[in-house]
Amino acid sequence: MRIALGIEYDGTGFSGWQRQTGTRTVQGCLEVALSKVADRDVSLICAGRTDAGVHAVGQVAHFDTVAVREMRSWVLGANANLPKAISVQWATEIDESFHARFSALSRRYRYVILNRWVRPGLAGRKVTWVHTPLDEARMQEAAAHLVGRHDFSSYRALACQAKSPIRTVHGISVERDGDYVYLDIHANAFLHHMVRNIAGVLIDIGKGERATAWSREILELRDRTLGGVTAPPDGLYFTHVEYPESYPLPAAVRPPRF
Amino acid sequence: MRIALGIEYDGTGFSGWQRQTGTRTVQGCLEVALSKVADRDVSLICAGRTDAGVHAVGQVAHFDTVAVREMRSWVLGANANLPKAISVQWATEIDESFHARFSALSRRYRYVILNRWVRPGLAGRKVTWVHTPLDEARMQEAAAHLVGRHDFSSYRALACQAKSPIRTVHGISVERDGDYVYLDIHANAFLHHMVRNIAGVLIDIGKGERATAWSREILELRDRTLGGVTAPPDGLYFTHVEYPESYPLPAAVRPPRF
Repeated sequence: MRIALGIEYDGTGFSGWQRQTGTRTVQGCLEVALSKVADRDVSLICAGRTDAGVHAVGQVAHFDTVAVREMRSWVLGANANLPKAISVQWATEIDESFHARFSALSRRYRYVILNRWVRPGLAGRKVTWVHTPLDEARMQEAAAHLVGRHDFSSYRALACQAKSPIRTVHGISVERDGDYVYLDIHANAFLHHMVRNIAGVLIDIGKGERATAWSREILELRDRTLGGVTAPPDGLYFTHVEYPESYPLPAAVRPPRF
Repeated sequence: MRIALGIEYDGTGFSGWQRQTGTRTVQGCLEVALSKVADRDVSLICAGRTDAGVHAVGQVAHFDTVAVREMRSWVLGANANLPKAISVQWATEIDESFHARFSALSRRYRYVILNRWVRPGLAGRKVTWVHTPLDEARMQEAAAHLVGRHDFSSYRALACQAKSPIRTVHGISVERDGDYVYLDIHANAFLHHMVRNIAGVLIDIGKGERATAWSREILELRDRTLGGVTAPPDGLYFTHVEYPESYPLPAAVRPPRF
């Protein structure tokens, strides 16, 4: 039986999603918890492996098991055995053709910037603090250059293992709400560090340190070593994955606000 | 010289506002940080002493000092010496007739409830989780019984040291936004545990365990031992203090959202 899960986590205290020996990871904690519920080993495959410190409200994963449990029991049993910073939101039995990663049509991330002269007290590592005033209209203009099907070599980590650097960005929006600037990106898939590298470039443009065309100039260079800084993981949230309608999964949750 | 401060904090890791020997408190951390900036002892008086685990976005405090510093230096110097969970938002020189506590005309608190069947992963101790579905219309109806000038003996902690149990509640609103229920209370002043005791009663009414008139019945009994449970501190935020317009202080900040 194949089971799909929706997962929310505060990534602050984890070395990212991916299981690693001797390190606390989201996948590692989930597999331990689910294996207790199943009373046998469970291995997870997720829609998008997040980096250390990156959060999620809409991560999706799947696993196969012969253990028979109520869907409610998978959720409550996992949550009873998970650290407080991880919470399984739903579980649903799904056709074995479903694959959390390969069936995904597109993914969405939100990057949250606290833009004021004093550092956060309450939001802590849930936002990225930028004290220089940002011009969100300039950021939106620069973001528009990245929409479409492009070679994102300049925006992927040097260590990125994806075979192709080609990705399709369906949309990027930059919106200010008081002291918070929300950067929402929707793409078919993302390269390693792609959102954080885009955020880094847009932040420098928003500060006025670079022209709005800089985002496109970097893109055209297709060379990471000529790209911008990688923005911190703190403000990054994996918010949603779209799958074909033939897979009946719960609706999207609202991305975090402040 | 008298200086007023605006302060934001995540109360999770503190034993409340009030300085106590051998315990980490918000006041204690602030006085240590400000004393370093002043190069002499600083003692703070705040608008409202919050309990252990209670957060603030709009706490106000004042202190007197002979140290002469730029207002910007008080803020940045304090923040450089404070734990990450506390952040001074502003500092302003103010007339010596100003008193953070006694000049306050009214105070506002927000209580945030995450109302869904699974526990929080991301929000952690920034919300109070209630898994039973809440009827916010019933809560609003019950809340209306508390508006006005009343003897709030049934809603104050047994240990409350206030001389009078009379307080004037200017307004209470209960609003749902998705899985979150926001309870906003505005009063001239609050008794010890008053907001959490009101929240506890409204939550039980929202669950359908009690009639909407129960909030008034408790009020009329004027006996804490007959009141409801004290709701957890996790979802509670001290959001704003109003002072006479003759004291020019920064505008209110927006209460936290999710």
